[in-house]
Amino acid sequence: MNEATSPIPCDLLIEAGHVIPVAPHGVVLEDHAVAIDKGVILAILPHAEARGRYAPRETVSRPDSALIPGLVNAHTHNPMTLMRGVADDLPLKVWLQRHIWPIEGAVIGPEFVADGCTLAIAEMLRGGTTCANEHYFFPDVQAATYKRFGFRARIGLPVIDFPTAWAKSDDEYFDRAGEVHDAWRDDALIRTAFAPHAPYTVDDGNFERVGLLADQLDIPVHLHLHETAQEVRQSVERYGVRPIARLDRLGLINDRLIAVHMTQLTEAEIRLCAERGVSVVHCPESNLKLASGFCPACALLRAGVNLAIGTDGAASNNDLDMVGETRTAALLAKAVAEDAAAFSAAEALRAATLGGAKAMGVEDVIGTLEPGKQADIACLSFDSIEGQPMFEAISQIIYATGRHQVSDVWIAGKARLCERKLVGMDEAGILANARQWRSRIAAIDSAR
Amino acid sequence: MNEATSPIPCDLLIEAGHVIPVAPHGVVLEDHAVAIDKGVILAILPHAEARGRYAPRETVSRPDSALIPGLVNAHTHNPMTLMRGVADDLPLKVWLQRHIWPIEGAVIGPEFVADGCTLAIAEMLRGGTTCANEHYFFPDVQAATYKRFGFRARIGLPVIDFPTAWAKSDDEYFDRAGEVHDAWRDDALIRTAFAPHAPYTVDDGNFERVGLLADQLDIPVHLHLHETAQEVRQSVERYGVRPIARLDRLGLINDRLIAVHMTQLTEAEIRLCAERGVSVVHCPESNLKLASGFCPACALLRAGVNLAIGTDGAASNNDLDMVGETRTAALLAKAVAEDAAAFSAAEALRAATLGGAKAMGVEDVIGTLEPGKQADIACLSFDSIEGQPMFEAISQIIYATGRHQVSDVWIAGKARLCERKLVGMDEAGILANARQWRSRIAAIDSAR
Repeated sequence: MNEATSPIPCDLLIEAGHVIPVAPHGVVLEDHAVAIDKGVILAILPHAEARGRYAPRETVSRPDSALIPGLVNAHTHNPMTLMRGVADDLPLKVWLQRHIWPIEGAVIGPEFVADGCTLAIAEMLRGGTTCANEHYFFPDVQAATYKRFGFRARIGLPVIDFPTAWAKSDDEYFDRAGEVHDAWRDDALIRTAFAPHAPYTVDDGNFERVGLLADQLDIPVHLHLHETAQEVRQSVERYGVRPIARLDRLGLINDRLIAVHMTQLTEAEIRLCAERGVSVVHCPESNLKLASGFCPACALLRAGVNLAIGTDGAASNNDLDMVGETRTAALLAKAVAEDAAAFSAAEALRAATLGGAKAMGVEDVIGTLEPGKQADIACLSFDSIEGQPMFEAISQIIYATGRHQVSDVWIAGKARLCERKLVGMDEAGILANARQWRSRIAAIDSAR
Repeated sequence: MNEATSPIPCDLLIEAGHVIPVAPHGVVLEDHAVAIDKGVILAILPHAEARGRYAPRETVSRPDSALIPGLVNAHTHNPMTLMRGVADDLPLKVWLQRHIWPIEGAVIGPEFVADGCTLAIAEMLRGGTTCANEHYFFPDVQAATYKRFGFRARIGLPVIDFPTAWAKSDDEYFDRAGEVHDAWRDDALIRTAFAPHAPYTVDDGNFERVGLLADQLDIPVHLHLHETAQEVRQSVERYGVRPIARLDRLGLINDRLIAVHMTQLTEAEIRLCAERGVSVVHCPESNLKLASGFCPACALLRAGVNLAIGTDGAASNNDLDMVGETRTAALLAKAVAEDAAAFSAAEALRAATLGGAKAMGVEDVIGTLEPGKQADIACLSFDSIEGQPMFEAISQIIYATGRHQVSDVWIAGKARLCERKLVGMDEAGILANARQWRSRIAAIDSAR
């Protein structure tokens, strides 16, 4: 055997019945394998060819399954997973003022944030999610927790006009943001973003500081925007313009902006977002449950806006199920657009993977299965009553697959879920801990 | 021990952390047990009391779980489960004319109907559903298949203006309907209903015959109604009135009517439905996916209309997941009503159980967990990462529980799913059969 044909050693070869790379769009490769070395995808090629070309140290075979890029949860408040379903079916104001804020006031701190993130990471892995765009307090603790479990995340650096357990003054918010950013600036898994809360809780001066610093640090700005009609009305009353127009005056409507929710949009605002390269994160289940409105997902796509999907926090949703969220997005988009052929399954899958990666500014690293990208991969099994018959893999994933069909997950080539078992996480311990927090939080909530 | 205090023998005692009887509304009984004998619920009472009062032949203990009445899928075309996802993201006309009808033309018959129903029964059991309201051809085969696996169903007796594999003429539709009804009239699990297809495929004469015979046989009329704006427009063009007004002229707007979809409703039509005791079956995911419109679920409830939930067929949905469908109904209703406090989790659960039972005219038999009713019960486990923390059981079931958390199902007191294993069904055989049908159907679809 001459050297040109001797097999190339690599860490891992994953063989699957279907490989869906997302780029090229809508393609399903039947009976293909993904070769991985040092966390990076080397090649995607037919089984037979892969076996000849590579000498993998480990081979995983999933003939009745599909490989997809790991799902990207582009908007979440993961520590709040400990408050899953603590108070439902209430008007937003009552929910926040009588339940969420009093509970947060009593529990928020490093322990709550670390435990909440840990529970969330376990839930996300069991549902095929490999990357989270975080928006909560104590980003230092979040970063350390994600890193500990080898999970990819962009950690929001919070900015809000009033004191919290995280910071007492505007200056402290920005000082602590800088410290967290510096601590993680060279990490392979963890990145940061500015996370100003919302147009109604951040004043012009703070938005201007966010804009300047985001440019300087070259990081995104992750913001709740045009979530409700009330938010827009209040802005017109207070600032004379809608929030997008106000942010445009402040220099923030650009390709750093990750605009979350966006249920209230004029055609001109959609065009502006497309022209400026704004990414929109659609959180359909949160928007439905809180009766916030309908994000015009199809109109945004047609205008050329990058669209991503997020679950929002589990306190309002009440899960971190990106498989289900993407399905809801696909179903809802058709009804809102009044067109059964709009927002195809392939477009939904792209939004949940590449769209999220683009929004988070990491589309060079993740979001598709392509040589040179990080091996962030989810494997979904069709080998069950719910998974058969299976005519078209992308359609089956979006319209007929539940997150419990996720069998395996790799992040940067490392197995994090293996045949439904979490790798390197103490599942029983996490469950026991969640039950403890349940007792503590229930005591606070009933003591109000 | 005197006779008054000696334990009463019974077949089964199910102890659970939470028992949700649905009637009374919104109640969760903690650490209660359900005592069952000869398929009937004897009592629901605290664990300790149950152990003293009953001497069960079998005890099942589920401390981290909730018992609910078995879910009632109030509108489905279950044989079509074999066509799950055969053609998606297409306009309704293309989907029907180029895919579904040609396939049905080639495959429809007793074998297809039996195999499709069998796969559907397996899927429904694994998702907590214990009763189906069927609407398809070959009701004789459907009835025999549901009976074979001990599943409760109301079988639609099809009426449509054109010849099909089931019947060639109007008279043959009605003759065969009568035969099937007679064959099953005294069965404990299987009942029948008339199933005229839709206002645009059934003429006045056939609707009048349906009305007369439904009264005579004392069975419901299960009909697709006001599904799309186009249906309503066509009726106005052809008959001068909207479909509901036309059916009212024909005497069909009454408490026998199970009206499915109902996305296009005026306030007067909602009032009429309330006054006449019409039941509405809401199929939110089908309505979204086919861009049919939004059923005003909250407005119907507020007007006093009985509301049920259905998945529609798996060819258009693409699953038979009543847990997911009910969640979608609950989320969507809030957005459509523009009120986060509308359509509570308890209201959603009631629609998916008692609402379906009422629509199908069997609320005296199933739909709640109450002494004297049949023991149709689903058990949902919270003992997983996705299920914790758990603050309020009804809220958790509706907003944070997936169908894979259904651990056990009983129908008329008989275990049909036990710790995720189907009882009396050959799961591997059903899967192999579904794969065979996949090949046959794909060959037909690609040969067009």
